[in-house]
Amino acid sequence: MNRNIAIAIHGGAGTILRSSMTPELQTQYEDGLRSALHTGYSILEAGGSSLDAVAAAVASLEDFPLFNAGKGSVFNNAGNHEMDACIMNGKNLEAGAVCGISNVKNPVLVARVVMEHSGHVLLSGMGAEDYARSMGMAFEQDDYFYTTQRYQQWQNAVAEDRVQLDHSDKKFGTVGAVALDIEGNLAAATSTGGMTNKKYGRIGDSPIPGAGTYANNDTCAISCTGHGELFIRAVVAHDISCLMAYKNLSLTDACDIVVHDKLVKIAGEGGLVAIDKHGNIYMPFNSEGMYRACRNNNGKYEVSIYKD
Amino acid sequence: MNRNIAIAIHGGAGTILRSSMTPELQTQYEDGLRSALHTGYSILEAGGSSLDAVAAAVASLEDFPLFNAGKGSVFNNAGNHEMDACIMNGKNLEAGAVCGISNVKNPVLVARVVMEHSGHVLLSGMGAEDYARSMGMAFEQDDYFYTTQRYQQWQNAVAEDRVQLDHSDKKFGTVGAVALDIEGNLAAATSTGGMTNKKYGRIGDSPIPGAGTYANNDTCAISCTGHGELFIRAVVAHDISCLMAYKNLSLTDACDIVVHDKLVKIAGEGGLVAIDKHGNIYMPFNSEGMYRACRNNNGKYEVSIYKD
Repeated sequence: MNRNIAIAIHGGAGTILRSSMTPELQTQYEDGLRSALHTGYSILEAGGSSLDAVAAAVASLEDFPLFNAGKGSVFNNAGNHEMDACIMNGKNLEAGAVCGISNVKNPVLVARVVMEHSGHVLLSGMGAEDYARSMGMAFEQDDYFYTTQRYQQWQNAVAEDRVQLDHSDKKFGTVGAVALDIEGNLAAATSTGGMTNKKYGRIGDSPIPGAGTYANNDTCAISCTGHGELFIRAVVAHDISCLMAYKNLSLTDACDIVVHDKLVKIAGEGGLVAIDKHGNIYMPFNSEGMYRACRNNNGKYEVSIYKD
Repeated sequence: MNRNIAIAIHGGAGTILRSSMTPELQTQYEDGLRSALHTGYSILEAGGSSLDAVAAAVASLEDFPLFNAGKGSVFNNAGNHEMDACIMNGKNLEAGAVCGISNVKNPVLVARVVMEHSGHVLLSGMGAEDYARSMGMAFEQDDYFYTTQRYQQWQNAVAEDRVQLDHSDKKFGTVGAVALDIEGNLAAATSTGGMTNKKYGRIGDSPIPGAGTYANNDTCAISCTGHGELFIRAVVAHDISCLMAYKNLSLTDACDIVVHDKLVKIAGEGGLVAIDKHGNIYMPFNSEGMYRACRNNNGKYEVSIYKD
């Protein structure tokens, strides 16, 4: 029996322009991706679970200040950080998620505790923070989440009275990971700081099982990044799984239909990382670029930002 | 061309025991269902849209104190009422939803305003209330949501330190409606007060497009009621749509696979109301009973509670 292991991660998609990227900044982004990829892959290589691998990879991306999740989360309209995260286990379809939480160091780890211990799937706001506290999860003060870059982005957005997707160059800030472990189990996780200057407790697709995050051992594991409203309406991650399960499409064909046809038709810009039960990896996006990386035990290793 | 109109509504599923029902109470429940059905059907009959019909029918169910939504919402752990609602338009896959909101008279009407005016799909908590207020939606004081029955249920739950699903007889309190209008457009809406004594900002399947609520003119409109965590994990409403779209199953066959096989395997108790693009109505549930009613322009008219 061919035992494959594989992991794919992303740090958001969007209009990532070479003109606004310096070589130094590009190296920093790539280092952040490489480090998270290594963290997750090492777990798989040591025989660990895909669940452990995606949680660790996403936590690494959350700790990296340039990506919009955890430490690098954008400012909302009130000048705070409201984060969403989700994790799903393809073995038993268990899922855990949190939305609209503040001051939690690693939202993805809280999502996992929700999945494993709360009896619930989705907890929100201060209630979710209370739960995280009761379970001894790590919290950080506001200054931990402060970065000059994010603060400036927020001030610019406030000045122009607009809600924006992460960067001034229209980037959908989200991080995520999918993995297949040696036991054949798939898992997916996604985390985000949402939209700069967002109001009204807006929640995107990231924390919603089936929309931004999905894993099912019979088909695939998916983590999305993009214009969340459109990804929710298209039930993106679950739709790919259904196209594979009910139409016997390959991972690539199923993803292409959703990312390059269905989403394009409703102007749903973004992308995703995907792995099927055989360990095939696909990282499609319909935007200019997507921070992404992947590795398997058959020699595949990639760290990329742009389309070409 | 055969122009059908149809509507189906529910007031929750679960273990509804004849032994704990009086003739007077049963008449009250049936009157509540009949009134909401009439409200929605009248709109369809006058050539109105399915969106208007499901919004009006669900608002009527929210105003009825015996169902767990709007006025009749259960108490959460803090002694408040936190409500969730969602509406979806099958014509263009637009959706709007709110979760964890308090003091809003008709959450389903706020969900519709979110869909039509906010640029977002899902708004949460106090942010969603701020948005509702800014759009001039009706609010009510706490005493509007107070009913002796709900207060006693909460006190009993607190005394036993348990989270419970609406009634002492294990009822999944949710209301919902699906409709097909004369133009061939499908719509779905769902609203709930959640679980008695719930903590931690728990959110169920009701406000999640694809999970508890879904509408797509190519396939069907679905509104669910049941153990929300399981319905989220199974992406119930979207799964039925995918089984129809990708395996060419009938509405009945697709619903049966999800409600009587997939959900049963993960102990996902509950049911749903469904209408396909031809106007076929199906109201399956795997629990003891489901408060339900339906009507079409071919003489079908039903108001039921129990299995037989």
